[in-house]
Amino acid sequence: MKHNRIFNFNAGPAVLPLPVLEEVQESFLNFKGCGMSITEISHRSKWFDDIINDAVERTKRILNLGDRYEVLFMQGGASMQFALIPMNFLGDGQSADYVNTGTWSTSAIKEAKIQKKTIQVVASSEDKNFSYIPKNIRFTPGAAYVHITSNNTIKGTQWASFPDTSNVPIITDMSSDIMSRPINMENVGLIYAGAQKNIGPAGVCMVIVRKDLLKTVPDSLPTMFKYTTHSTKNSMYNTPPCFAIYVIQLVLKWLEETIGGLNQMEEINNRKAKLLYDFFDSGSFYKGTAEPDSRSRMNVTFRLPSEDLEKKFVAEATSNGFGGLKGHRSVGGCRASIYNATPAEAVPALIDFMKTFEKTNG
Amino acid sequence: MKHNRIFNFNAGPAVLPLPVLEEVQESFLNFKGCGMSITEISHRSKWFDDIINDAVERTKRILNLGDRYEVLFMQGGASMQFALIPMNFLGDGQSADYVNTGTWSTSAIKEAKIQKKTIQVVASSEDKNFSYIPKNIRFTPGAAYVHITSNNTIKGTQWASFPDTSNVPIITDMSSDIMSRPINMENVGLIYAGAQKNIGPAGVCMVIVRKDLLKTVPDSLPTMFKYTTHSTKNSMYNTPPCFAIYVIQLVLKWLEETIGGLNQMEEINNRKAKLLYDFFDSGSFYKGTAEPDSRSRMNVTFRLPSEDLEKKFVAEATSNGFGGLKGHRSVGGCRASIYNATPAEAVPALIDFMKTFEKTNG
Repeated sequence: MKHNRIFNFNAGPAVLPLPVLEEVQESFLNFKGCGMSITEISHRSKWFDDIINDAVERTKRILNLGDRYEVLFMQGGASMQFALIPMNFLGDGQSADYVNTGTWSTSAIKEAKIQKKTIQVVASSEDKNFSYIPKNIRFTPGAAYVHITSNNTIKGTQWASFPDTSNVPIITDMSSDIMSRPINMENVGLIYAGAQKNIGPAGVCMVIVRKDLLKTVPDSLPTMFKYTTHSTKNSMYNTPPCFAIYVIQLVLKWLEETIGGLNQMEEINNRKAKLLYDFFDSGSFYKGTAEPDSRSRMNVTFRLPSEDLEKKFVAEATSNGFGGLKGHRSVGGCRASIYNATPAEAVPALIDFMKTFEKTNG
Repeated sequence: MKHNRIFNFNAGPAVLPLPVLEEVQESFLNFKGCGMSITEISHRSKWFDDIINDAVERTKRILNLGDRYEVLFMQGGASMQFALIPMNFLGDGQSADYVNTGTWSTSAIKEAKIQKKTIQVVASSEDKNFSYIPKNIRFTPGAAYVHITSNNTIKGTQWASFPDTSNVPIITDMSSDIMSRPINMENVGLIYAGAQKNIGPAGVCMVIVRKDLLKTVPDSLPTMFKYTTHSTKNSMYNTPPCFAIYVIQLVLKWLEETIGGLNQMEEINNRKAKLLYDFFDSGSFYKGTAEPDSRSRMNVTFRLPSEDLEKKFVAEATSNGFGGLKGHRSVGGCRASIYNATPAEAVPALIDFMKTFEKTNG
């Protein structure tokens, strides 16, 4: 591979588009001829204004958001959002619905409970080790919001589409599938996404929030905890994570101008995922862990016949230039994360390696 | 200048050591031969473990911290710390002392009050537009902590040394002077510092906390708000801002191995600041705004005879390759921020320019 790079299947931080990395490198000592590195310019400068405004505008355009939403860049990752969401949007006397589809949903539920907020876990797939997305859920009429995890990085499941919540705003963690496909925004109240999987480096969380929800944010919260603080200041109440936002801007530019947008991105992503799942289904050595109708197009989780073989597989893959194939430490097994930036040729190359490994060890 | 770089006097994000930037650039597409960018490696990898552990160890060594302190990397900047400090360390029935020395102290006080915590503002320099550091302060015996802002970026003042608090732990915002000089840790309970001035890029906040303080953190707080969450997980409860921590590690390496440590750094910083202040004091065209015994060695604030001349000065300086000399938008005037990474030759070059400007406009 160019620059001696490996095929990187990390779950996050994850692979970024090579042209983006090359541009960062090229201009790193002198950004746009300003005589400073991107890491040295003021966040109050015209240079940075152009970056953040472009990132916001591209996000609105790519997701077709119109004027109903604000796009924010916050710190603390999705884990910080787990705490801030009930704090901002779940007042006294109100209740919210949560769907539990795995580790991150469970954490979101935990952070609402720590604050003694009233929530209902209206569906869970814990009965089958979170291997599926629940169907036919009865949401609570009048709930303040419905919280779902759009894609479950660890369990390898993904909502095929957002559920019908009868106008209750959906709040969704899209850390691992934001910008991977077009989404129906009809009932979406808020999207949050740690950038380090599909849109940038670690250290920034994209938040897309419907403007009417901001009206319910209590004034009494500490300043940094209020979404309104970040929305009124264009994400610059205090110094933002400038470098991470800059890389996001370049990734969105790549997505829009090189890939062509979300329809094209979805097609590419579906093709990559289908190759892997079809390969699993054509034999019995590699077994996908998610139920077929809940399979993630981003994180493909699978098992081999034994844990010893899994260890051997990950080790041999690594020495053959396929990185990050170990499953999350909480569940074991194997996982190939195939985000937007995973090059199309990475998946057939991996399958070739898997076939060879099966022949030798099957 | 090399790479057509300017003399960068930005207050933050600010200049970084050129050798650090060159190393980041050089290895950006393939970090230590791992076949991935530093922005693409897992925070659970050995590569990143080595980075964060080295950053922690260097911090302990450079500041001579011994085993009494933990070094953490958190998100949200100093503004997030303003809220978290009273939340974690100021329980019911307790009171804390705050000294108000300007904009950031005022914000820290505000965030404690928002939470209806009991605090005493035991001293303030507001009477003279925050142009000095208060002396002979009577701290409250038995206070939970004393909060001070070590260096006031906007007002250009700095504590010459930390006050005697009779064993009450000092909590101090060192965003703009951390690692600029040796400090007496005797009464220090907690130091926090947004990285983007003296130690790295924006997007990470260094926190140094005395271990006994961690015992008082309430269990009931949301997980991400507790310092104990970050200390028990080596700052990796969730994905940390990896790139920013990586740059900090390189800056600390530069400080230790190229500069030689804090004694040498302080000498260099004092020399740079003295050049500027002596120049002000030798004439009457440029006037320092801070009282002489409270002058900051990091942010040199000054005025010209009129606002029109200040505008002209900043504009001509910019076109002559001296950036970032405009004072903070809240106070006006001019400011030269001369952090650790400001090259020694930048200050005499600036003074030469200032002399020429005075000749033409004085």
